[in-house]
Amino acid sequence: MNPVEIIRKKREKKTLTEKEIGFIISRYTEGTLPDYQMSAFLMASYLNGLNKNETAFLTRAMLYSGKVIDLSKIPGIKVDKHSTGGVGDKTSLIIAPIVAAAGVKVPMISGRGLGHTGGTLDKLESIPGYRTNLDLNEYKNIIKTCGAVLIGQTKEIAPADKLIYALRDVTATVESIPLITGSIMSKKLAEGIDGLVLDVKTGSGAFMKSYRDAKKLAQSLTNTAKAFDKKVITFITDMSQPLGNYIGNWLEVHESINVLKGEEIKDLLEVSLHLSGAMLFLGGKAESIKHGIKISRDMINSGKAFNKFLEMVKLQGGDENILKNPDRYPKASNIYEIKSGHTGYLKAIDNYEVGMASLELGAGRKTKDDILDYSAGIIFYPKIGQKVYKGDLIATLFTNKKERLKIAEERILKSMKFSKNKVNAPKLIKEIIS
Amino acid sequence: MNPVEIIRKKREKKTLTEKEIGFIISRYTEGTLPDYQMSAFLMASYLNGLNKNETAFLTRAMLYSGKVIDLSKIPGIKVDKHSTGGVGDKTSLIIAPIVAAAGVKVPMISGRGLGHTGGTLDKLESIPGYRTNLDLNEYKNIIKTCGAVLIGQTKEIAPADKLIYALRDVTATVESIPLITGSIMSKKLAEGIDGLVLDVKTGSGAFMKSYRDAKKLAQSLTNTAKAFDKKVITFITDMSQPLGNYIGNWLEVHESINVLKGEEIKDLLEVSLHLSGAMLFLGGKAESIKHGIKISRDMINSGKAFNKFLEMVKLQGGDENILKNPDRYPKASNIYEIKSGHTGYLKAIDNYEVGMASLELGAGRKTKDDILDYSAGIIFYPKIGQKVYKGDLIATLFTNKKERLKIAEERILKSMKFSKNKVNAPKLIKEIIS
Repeated sequence: MNPVEIIRKKREKKTLTEKEIGFIISRYTEGTLPDYQMSAFLMASYLNGLNKNETAFLTRAMLYSGKVIDLSKIPGIKVDKHSTGGVGDKTSLIIAPIVAAAGVKVPMISGRGLGHTGGTLDKLESIPGYRTNLDLNEYKNIIKTCGAVLIGQTKEIAPADKLIYALRDVTATVESIPLITGSIMSKKLAEGIDGLVLDVKTGSGAFMKSYRDAKKLAQSLTNTAKAFDKKVITFITDMSQPLGNYIGNWLEVHESINVLKGEEIKDLLEVSLHLSGAMLFLGGKAESIKHGIKISRDMINSGKAFNKFLEMVKLQGGDENILKNPDRYPKASNIYEIKSGHTGYLKAIDNYEVGMASLELGAGRKTKDDILDYSAGIIFYPKIGQKVYKGDLIATLFTNKKERLKIAEERILKSMKFSKNKVNAPKLIKEIIS
Repeated sequence: MNPVEIIRKKREKKTLTEKEIGFIISRYTEGTLPDYQMSAFLMASYLNGLNKNETAFLTRAMLYSGKVIDLSKIPGIKVDKHSTGGVGDKTSLIIAPIVAAAGVKVPMISGRGLGHTGGTLDKLESIPGYRTNLDLNEYKNIIKTCGAVLIGQTKEIAPADKLIYALRDVTATVESIPLITGSIMSKKLAEGIDGLVLDVKTGSGAFMKSYRDAKKLAQSLTNTAKAFDKKVITFITDMSQPLGNYIGNWLEVHESINVLKGEEIKDLLEVSLHLSGAMLFLGGKAESIKHGIKISRDMINSGKAFNKFLEMVKLQGGDENILKNPDRYPKASNIYEIKSGHTGYLKAIDNYEVGMASLELGAGRKTKDDILDYSAGIIFYPKIGQKVYKGDLIATLFTNKKERLKIAEERILKSMKFSKNKVNAPKLIKEIIS
């Protein structure tokens, strides 16, 4: 096969075969296809698209560039959740223990934050001692004993994705639905799962800002999961404002603990319960999502979910005592309150700006090598539709870099639009696809 | 400036500024923009296009990646011709001496053949002793003294083109009108010309097979020449069959000598006279193309054109005696005649196949490193519209590789379509744009 002919075929908007896509991906992974041919292929795929079958072929080629973990010897149905990410999205920390406590195995391989969104691994690593770089044997053992495990991507998992993602980042080929699908699904399918719940975010704080794009991505991810015979339920949920109130690594662990201990944080709880409910339904422990939500509430109310969280953290080397007494966690040296200069109904938030303000304070990375400040972040109070009075507390900022307070404050104040008239709250669960 | 943002802009079909295009080209030429970003840029430009201004910016950036030769100290208007190439297209060898003999300077930097089309440099190098690798001082001196010079691209001329062309070749981004325009025009504009006659070929033996594509390229080249304030006349001419009868390096020199000595080879002469006529018009020596054609005929009939050819060849180190007695040129060791198996009107020729047959015999290159057999080639007799009888001589093949005769014969016989009904000859000069 000739790579130039394959690139030409995609350039001419023709449909590629499984062999052709497999050839490109395997040669690139083994280092015999040069970057410049891969980037031409990626741009042609970006602009001319990949259809449903081609997307599945891409995913399969990326998946089999590495190891597919075999969890078949561990009894029970294994279900994971993947979110496209957003500001304050800490649902993984909440639902993994809920679902495991209810008897469904949750093998979860997560990523780090980059830009305005946080990453589950970074949040977990804010817990002293917590190790995310487990090897695959430890991974299997913890699923077997605890029912939930949360680790980072290993070298064995979809190495093609790591290479291709790095190239997409520097060739303006990131925002492509088939390429995103291949990237997400190759990693998720490698985990050894039977079912997958997907949470595609939409709104100003999401990767897919428009509903139309979010819907397309949701459909593509769902189709691909089905092409691999996985049970799948996909949610499209709102990301036009932070989910919950806490943003930043340790702050999000803290808020997750609050939810697991029974605090009613409305939006965060609602999304978490839908996701865990769907996971329990796919895992065969509930008759419906609704029934799964009821079981999830029981897991919280009985304390089983929180205990499962403590168990998982302990097994992964983390200090469970700090989770029992989160107020003992070392505070950021600067804590600063922002007050509203306006009276009115909160009409819209540029949630990207809120995420970037948190990054400015030290909670996120501008480049892959930036070091995180785990205690940094924001507690952001108002929700869209709420009436805010001049002088009301808008947000509390936490940082060890005092000089960043100003720019974070500006970004947050600039991010909010007020209205004199009543405003409706955005619908949280926008669509369920299965 | 950030190259990723520039690639993204083109990916989103936005118009790039002169600075942005200049940034990409200059960084790539100096080696600080990696191949993979350039190839993503090229594919985005291929698929989303570059408009008239962007194409001029690209050409300018490529042009100024190297040296622009200054011929202003040499008196007179300097006019070159460029053809997009085809099978048996030897017009450069004929018109350069005609036009120089009539008093217009012809500074011509030519290329080599690759694939089914021949290259002017290869043809000239079939003349014993002829040197095409002159330096820029020799180039200037020969224009001054002789009026015509025919050399190869030097390192100083548009180095960006050499780099970008090599990358396009391996990333399926060759057949793009703006990229082709940049490549052709950056080299032509570097020659120090005041005017340019363009010959865009169309038909089965041309690079642009469809008339529609040829027209688009003709328009793009013409626009770009005008953007640089050059006088320009563009012809679209037929390449649905070989131009003249001789194909192959020395064979084409031989046929050019025949034309310069007054032989009436109808199609070849007609195209050559139009091109030289237009060059004389642009060079201020004729009042119209028609008048230029008359002057051109005079140059042939008076022997001045042939003498100019001898003078130019001698100045570039070539053996002019062999030009005076071309039959003394060493013959290929195998000469083989193909006869027609059909009676009928010749309806169509897959001229690409005829070019490839010549390549098989040793006259062309499959890869850049192949060594040419200067005596190899084809004399192809019939023209479209002509009645051919069974047993008529179709072609004479010349090669030093006997084992290639069979495959060349097959390609030639397969290339011809016959009809029982009369067929019109294709129009030779299809359009003149200025």
